[in-house]
Amino acid sequence: MKPPVNITITGAAGNIGYALIFRIATGEMLGEDQPLILRLLEVPAAMKALSGVAMELDDCAFPLLHDVILTDDSADGFRDTDYAMLVGSKPRTRGMERKDLITENAHIFSAQGKAINEHAARDVHVMVVGNPANTNALIAASNAPDINPANFTAMTRLDHNRAKAQIAIKTNNLVADVTRMTIWGNHSATQYPDISHCLVDGTPATELVSKDWVIDHFTPVIQQRGAAILEARGASSAASAADAALDHMRSWILGTDEGDWVSMGVLSDGSYDTEPGLIYSFPVTCKDKTYKIVQDLEIDDYSKQKMRLTEQELMQERDIIADLLQS
Amino acid sequence: MKPPVNITITGAAGNIGYALIFRIATGEMLGEDQPLILRLLEVPAAMKALSGVAMELDDCAFPLLHDVILTDDSADGFRDTDYAMLVGSKPRTRGMERKDLITENAHIFSAQGKAINEHAARDVHVMVVGNPANTNALIAASNAPDINPANFTAMTRLDHNRAKAQIAIKTNNLVADVTRMTIWGNHSATQYPDISHCLVDGTPATELVSKDWVIDHFTPVIQQRGAAILEARGASSAASAADAALDHMRSWILGTDEGDWVSMGVLSDGSYDTEPGLIYSFPVTCKDKTYKIVQDLEIDDYSKQKMRLTEQELMQERDIIADLLQS
Repeated sequence: MKPPVNITITGAAGNIGYALIFRIATGEMLGEDQPLILRLLEVPAAMKALSGVAMELDDCAFPLLHDVILTDDSADGFRDTDYAMLVGSKPRTRGMERKDLITENAHIFSAQGKAINEHAARDVHVMVVGNPANTNALIAASNAPDINPANFTAMTRLDHNRAKAQIAIKTNNLVADVTRMTIWGNHSATQYPDISHCLVDGTPATELVSKDWVIDHFTPVIQQRGAAILEARGASSAASAADAALDHMRSWILGTDEGDWVSMGVLSDGSYDTEPGLIYSFPVTCKDKTYKIVQDLEIDDYSKQKMRLTEQELMQERDIIADLLQS
Repeated sequence: MKPPVNITITGAAGNIGYALIFRIATGEMLGEDQPLILRLLEVPAAMKALSGVAMELDDCAFPLLHDVILTDDSADGFRDTDYAMLVGSKPRTRGMERKDLITENAHIFSAQGKAINEHAARDVHVMVVGNPANTNALIAASNAPDINPANFTAMTRLDHNRAKAQIAIKTNNLVADVTRMTIWGNHSATQYPDISHCLVDGTPATELVSKDWVIDHFTPVIQQRGAAILEARGASSAASAADAALDHMRSWILGTDEGDWVSMGVLSDGSYDTEPGLIYSFPVTCKDKTYKIVQDLEIDDYSKQKMRLTEQELMQERDIIADLLQS
């Protein structure tokens, strides 16, 4: 048996955390031969609820789960951690301006970046789920100068999976047959779900669906999917967000399928003329716990415009929190 | 690839259902080579919430999930089903007598038994999670005369897992090292968690813990665990119940480990002098989708008394709903 790895989850008593933790503990994320220690980090007010989650973890009698640490102290939470899943964030409340939301979360994620820098394993892999995910990841990375910034990513996999599902439903195929989907930019309403390079059982998706359908149906459905689920369930997407988080980490750590790619918010190196230094969602392939941005895709004018729009939003977000970025 | 199987889940929009469905869809229950069709059955008032769950299932882009059927019609819900997980039940409301709870659920489960009899696959495997689980399973089986009553079971696996976890914690061992745990009788406060035959890494548990600890700590913790979690989380155990449901079905369908057994509520054949015809939790081994009650365990006087007590409760429950049993 391998030695256990440390996995930190923030916001562990929340709904996404609750949907996520048990699946990690079964070995779904890192494989059934990888023992693990869960380091569950919460705010003080949620520690009691977290103790209930821990009882349930005990009760599941998971063979791979070697230890569970409950803490509201970020040094404990990130100590020697190998994988950090930053799920918790301050949600937007009624009447709150987006600018205030960004600023409040910026303070949380700059503190977490510092704690990661000080306490985590040097090759820690960090995924940010808490919104605004891209900019939160940027702040965390910027405040962890001793960690490779390529080890900080933001989740756009839920959008990616939603886009694959819509294409599968529309073309009456299995989602497993939909490959090379791309989400560009910000995990927000400006994101650009791009089917230009998508294949359905080997056939270009653009040959199977009309441009009108993409503009009038596909894109708005992906962008507004969260609201539709909230309306139906009376609660926000938790299980599907947790599932996407598992997918993101599994792809990053265990690798992507040959011939396919996934979407991840990663540090822009200027690929596709995007502003270097932003956390921007690109198509990536992964191998040996490292991602690579897919290069040389042909980008038409429509796509260029959409990619620019979401980039501009990310630059605005960066400007709002500029004082928290380390130079 | 194998042809897809039908899996019915009742109460699919509830908290246990929500924790369960996504894990089934990943292949955690029947294996990653088994495609499946989910037939999600709910009461009319929950159909809107269920539509949100279905959107999230789509969004997970599960390769094994071939179709999802949402219905409030039990004929549709159980049509050709291979595995039926009866999770939904009427919960006890404030001021409700236990007798009324049993009777109201008896009507639900007699109707479901009839629908299973009429529409399900002839070798359907049925697990009841909804309480009172043992008696609900008895009623369903009794109303499905064309199905082998051995194919109706009640879940006591959560109690079983909780008991294993408590022994592991107390003896400072991994749960994977705790084997041969037994839950006898009813999934209720009268259940008898029995460590007489339990091994911890090969050593009898009775040599590692005191009889006083078992009586004063272990047994009440198992019996009152649900209430403790409710108090801490502010919500009842959902993830651990779902996990136990997966364990129950996986053990039944894919088999138990060599040298170990699990606890399941199954039709009593008179083993251990229990009343034949009750659904009583026994230690069982499973192979080829069939369980066998473990025979010839030595039962001391203390155990006999505890086993009788929980049996008597089951006989009382049976008497309450006697008019719904088919002779």
